[in-house]
Amino acid sequence: MKRRMKATIAYDGTNFSGYQVQPQQRTVQEEIEKVLTVMHKSDEIVHVTASGRTDARVHATGQVLHFDTTLSIPLDRYAHALNVQLPRDIRVLNVEEVAPDFHARFSVHGKRYRYIWSCESVQSPFRRFYATPTNGVKPDVSAMKEAAQYILGTHDFSAFCAANTGVKDKVRTVEAIEFEWHGEELHMTVEGNGFLYNMVRIIAGTLWEVGTGKRISTELEGIVASMDRSKAGKTASAQGLYLEKVYYPE
Amino acid sequence: MKRRMKATIAYDGTNFSGYQVQPQQRTVQEEIEKVLTVMHKSDEIVHVTASGRTDARVHATGQVLHFDTTLSIPLDRYAHALNVQLPRDIRVLNVEEVAPDFHARFSVHGKRYRYIWSCESVQSPFRRFYATPTNGVKPDVSAMKEAAQYILGTHDFSAFCAANTGVKDKVRTVEAIEFEWHGEELHMTVEGNGFLYNMVRIIAGTLWEVGTGKRISTELEGIVASMDRSKAGKTASAQGLYLEKVYYPE
Repeated sequence: MKRRMKATIAYDGTNFSGYQVQPQQRTVQEEIEKVLTVMHKSDEIVHVTASGRTDARVHATGQVLHFDTTLSIPLDRYAHALNVQLPRDIRVLNVEEVAPDFHARFSVHGKRYRYIWSCESVQSPFRRFYATPTNGVKPDVSAMKEAAQYILGTHDFSAFCAANTGVKDKVRTVEAIEFEWHGEELHMTVEGNGFLYNMVRIIAGTLWEVGTGKRISTELEGIVASMDRSKAGKTASAQGLYLEKVYYPE
Repeated sequence: MKRRMKATIAYDGTNFSGYQVQPQQRTVQEEIEKVLTVMHKSDEIVHVTASGRTDARVHATGQVLHFDTTLSIPLDRYAHALNVQLPRDIRVLNVEEVAPDFHARFSVHGKRYRYIWSCESVQSPFRRFYATPTNGVKPDVSAMKEAAQYILGTHDFSAFCAANTGVKDKVRTVEAIEFEWHGEELHMTVEGNGFLYNMVRIIAGTLWEVGTGKRISTELEGIVASMDRSKAGKTASAQGLYLEKVYYPE
C-alpha cells in the first residue's frame, strides 16, 4: 500500500550545487532519491518533491519534502532508516504520514528564512561557511528596520527578483522582517507567503546597504514601486542564508 | 631588527592532519610557515613554535605561537597581513610583540580545553565536525561532576595518557573541570598547568562512561591511583575537542 510521507530535513549547503538535481552535480535531492530508491529496491527512481529549491551553498534547517512509499517501516523508525544511509550533511529530522493530496510545494502557506552576517573583525574559522563576513562592519540596525517597513505587505516584488526567472506573477506578501543580535552575529528573519528567486538575498543585500549608510531607509519605498531589479541592492551571498521553516495548513 | 611576536590563532581542525608539520600532510604549522616565509621573502623557512600540538580534527579557538620577524609591518596590521594570505580555516586573532625570551611552549603556565558533546537525537548537520554526537543520549551530569572531583589536583596522570609518548614526568595539576549545557550540547572545560598526550580526550571519555552509567563516579579514585591507561575509559573523539586558551605569566 502506498503512503504519502512528509519529511522535514536539514542540510549544510556548503558541498551541494543546490537542492535540485542537476547532471554531474552533487545535489540534496539526488542524495535523498538515491537512498530512497535503494531502500525501495526500485528500478525507477523514487522521486521526492520539496517545498522549493535552494541554491548552491544555501542551508536549510527546516526544508520539507514529500514522497510516496510502499515500505512498511514504522513511522518512528523512518527518519533513522534514512539517516543511517544519508551523507552526514543531510539529516532527516522528522517523517510523518500525510493525506495523499498533500504536496510539499503546492500546499505551502508560507516560509521563513534566516540570514546571518558575522560582524566580528576577524570571522571565526568555524563560521566561514555559515554566515556572511562583514570584516568588522556593524550596521545601523534601526535604519535597516525602518527600511524593512517598506518591504512588508503585499507588493509586486520584481525589484527583488533575479532576472530571467520564468515566474509571471511576482506579487507576494512579506509578513515579517525581524533583526536580532546573537553575540557579534546579526540575524534577520523574513517570513512571507512565498518568495521569488533570490528574493531574500536581494532584500538582505539592499537592507545591508541601508545599514551601512550607502542608502537611506526611505529609498526602499521607491525601490519596491520601481519593480526594477537594477534599483535594488546587491544579492547577498548564499552562505548566510537558511531556509528555516515551511508552513502548511493545519 | 628582529622582533619576537606572539600570535593567538583559531583554526577549524577538520581538514588538517593536526597542528604539527608532517611530510605529505596538510598541517596548521606548515600553512602558517608558508605564509610567513613568503612574507619575509626568506630562503629559509620562517619557523613558528606553538604552545603544543593538537591532533587531526582537533580545533583551536586560542592556540598561541611565537616567531621572530624582521618585517616592519605595524602591530595593528600584522594579523590582517597574515589573514589575507592564510586559508580561511586558520585565522590570526591577535599579534603582539613580546620579550625576546618569550617562548610559546616553555613559558606556558596553563591551558584550558573545551569538549563538546551534541546530545540531540539527530545531530545537526552543521555540528557534524564540531561536536561529538551521542545519538540522543543525555548523560547524568551530576555523576560526571562527582567523578571529576577525583581528577582535580596534582596527580601522576599515567592512567590518562596515551601509551608510547616520550614524556617521563606525568605529574600534572588539573585546576578545574566544569560542565555547562548550551541547549542540547554539553560543554566540559578542563583547566590545568599542562596536559599529557590525549589526556583531555581520555578524561572526557572516562567521565562520559560515568555519565551514562557504565561506571560509578567513585571508581575514578582508583583509576587515577592505578596509573594504568587500561583502567580509564575510551579516548573521546577528536572532533569535540577545542584548545581554548593558553595562559602565560603576566
